[in-house]
Amino acid sequence: MNKVAIVGTGQTKFSKEDGDIEKLLFESANICIQSTKNCVPNDIDGVLVSTNDNSKYMGAILSEMMGIQPRISHSIEHLCSSGTNAIISAYSYISSGLSDVVLVSGVESATNPGQVLEWDKSRGNFEHPIYWASMLTKSHKRKFHTTEEELAIVSAKNYKHAMDNPSAYSNEPRTISEVMNSKQITDDLRILDCSRSCSGSSSIILASEEKAKKITEQPIWITGIGQKTTSASFTKNILEEIKSTRIAADAAYKMANIEAKQIDVAEVHDAFSVCELMAISELRITSNEKSGEFVRNLFNTENRMINPRGGLIGAGHPLGATGISQTIEISNQLQGKSEKRQIPNTRTGLIHNMSAAGTSSSVMVLKN
Amino acid sequence: MNKVAIVGTGQTKFSKEDGDIEKLLFESANICIQSTKNCVPNDIDGVLVSTNDNSKYMGAILSEMMGIQPRISHSIEHLCSSGTNAIISAYSYISSGLSDVVLVSGVESATNPGQVLEWDKSRGNFEHPIYWASMLTKSHKRKFHTTEEELAIVSAKNYKHAMDNPSAYSNEPRTISEVMNSKQITDDLRILDCSRSCSGSSSIILASEEKAKKITEQPIWITGIGQKTTSASFTKNILEEIKSTRIAADAAYKMANIEAKQIDVAEVHDAFSVCELMAISELRITSNEKSGEFVRNLFNTENRMINPRGGLIGAGHPLGATGISQTIEISNQLQGKSEKRQIPNTRTGLIHNMSAAGTSSSVMVLKN
Repeated sequence: MNKVAIVGTGQTKFSKEDGDIEKLLFESANICIQSTKNCVPNDIDGVLVSTNDNSKYMGAILSEMMGIQPRISHSIEHLCSSGTNAIISAYSYISSGLSDVVLVSGVESATNPGQVLEWDKSRGNFEHPIYWASMLTKSHKRKFHTTEEELAIVSAKNYKHAMDNPSAYSNEPRTISEVMNSKQITDDLRILDCSRSCSGSSSIILASEEKAKKITEQPIWITGIGQKTTSASFTKNILEEIKSTRIAADAAYKMANIEAKQIDVAEVHDAFSVCELMAISELRITSNEKSGEFVRNLFNTENRMINPRGGLIGAGHPLGATGISQTIEISNQLQGKSEKRQIPNTRTGLIHNMSAAGTSSSVMVLKN
Repeated sequence: MNKVAIVGTGQTKFSKEDGDIEKLLFESANICIQSTKNCVPNDIDGVLVSTNDNSKYMGAILSEMMGIQPRISHSIEHLCSSGTNAIISAYSYISSGLSDVVLVSGVESATNPGQVLEWDKSRGNFEHPIYWASMLTKSHKRKFHTTEEELAIVSAKNYKHAMDNPSAYSNEPRTISEVMNSKQITDDLRILDCSRSCSGSSSIILASEEKAKKITEQPIWITGIGQKTTSASFTKNILEEIKSTRIAADAAYKMANIEAKQIDVAEVHDAFSVCELMAISELRITSNEKSGEFVRNLFNTENRMINPRGGLIGAGHPLGATGISQTIEISNQLQGKSEKRQIPNTRTGLIHNMSAAGTSSSVMVLKN
């Protein structure tokens, strides 16, 4: 099996304004190709577009805009984890030998579909994600004695990290007290507990070992992959766990032959503040009971290990681009290129991306 | 690299009525699983949905409906060749070792999007596919001296084949004269030259060599794959060729280590009658100059080698399902299970599926 590396990355600024998805895709793909030492459009033989937008044939359209005539091109959709699904699909094309160099570009406009899963009638009038997030929050507080302050620290930390991320949607510092006093939208959620849908695009280039060494001096290797879909509807979930994440993480660790304690840096899917606490538990980085204390300690010591780019809460959540931006951050961290956000001496990083109340999860382990 | 086999197939009837895509998906996936000797939902670790429908999260939704909790699930869209894109993606997951058994289900409702590529402004008011098909037809007549009768034979042959296909949209025999006297819709196209959008779903299960041998006594192997996207817009095309098909075919033949003359049976993408003539030329089965004569000879000798199920013209064209139905037909032919449509002694079969005026093509070679 061919080894697969990340060899180029690029992204647009994330913004609340509705964006033209073709322009956004072109912008991030262009920055991405320019980020490589010597990769040209002709080298690229796969183009995958990750989006919830209803436009068709975007793989071919992006290819034409970029001057690429790929073997493989199509669009991939899986709600909020479309991005990592596309990256893992690209991995499989390269690993199987069907492709050598794949451009994966994710894009979303702020008002795009995919923000509510209309199919899930079990949610009744509570179809917006804030309702399942509120139930998870109430349950976490009750079962694990998580405090409102601990939940607010997740947001305050991620808003703070986003201040050093030039692509982030948010560039406002938010204190713990500001988060706790922000507008209440359900019994257990405030507005600053929530990530925001936004416009943006992120692109990444993956390559086989042979090509990677020609394209970059610092390839970042995808060494572990785990994915799981447990259901589509929320009622199949248990409130205290994100089973798909646990299963995906264990598979990724096994493939990478590592344990959770070896993770130096992780981007986790904090669609809402409680999701970060649950994610770091399911990823075996800590436990649910200790997750609030764990995040408080990171915040107090200015340790950026979890969500250094600001996570979804700070950086924004352009659905189809999110998993790709998470992967870009971990890749840059492992290359030592994260500037003000850089965590020293990173060797092993993790990406956790999920969809629809955690009914699907993707986990990837990267190494430099 | 793991070998990959087709181990199960199933499809619904294709119909002109608008259909509920979830019901259609469930129906074809269910028939598909039941077609296997002993594959159960628990064995399936990948679920890919191929469609142009705007519904989201269909991979997870189909999984939940079927009682599957896969590792990998998402939707794939690439207009009319979404189906083969999904099958080839499934191949890459299995070949790379990320998955063992993948269900690929394609679906479309008759009025679904994807029938017109709105992005391609170069088409002006002539955005409907009949206009590019008309230009290709005029060009084929002029350059290769193809007659109206030869074009009509393509349709008459495929309508005739569809009479023996219980899933086909059309079950009316159409004589050459009926085709030639059907309603004229452009200078060079009549209504019976055109495939019709319709409702329908097709499913296929792919498996690794190890799993395939447990699931079926007659695995059909995917031995050759070629894909190419040359552009998205029609104006980049040359009227006399489908370059993406030629490139994809040559790659598939090389991978399968065969020549075109070894093909015993082929499903080719006859979105319009001229497309069949061009396809069999680009696939090197004959030449454009001889393609009319070639098809006339098949028709006169009742040789079903090209489009035995009736092609898109006879069987109907539910976009996301088409490439999967083509693959099912070739798989069944190689298993000797095509009943009235069976071609004797088939060893090697081919699938040709394309999108958007041939700007993208997929070619697969199957062996028994």
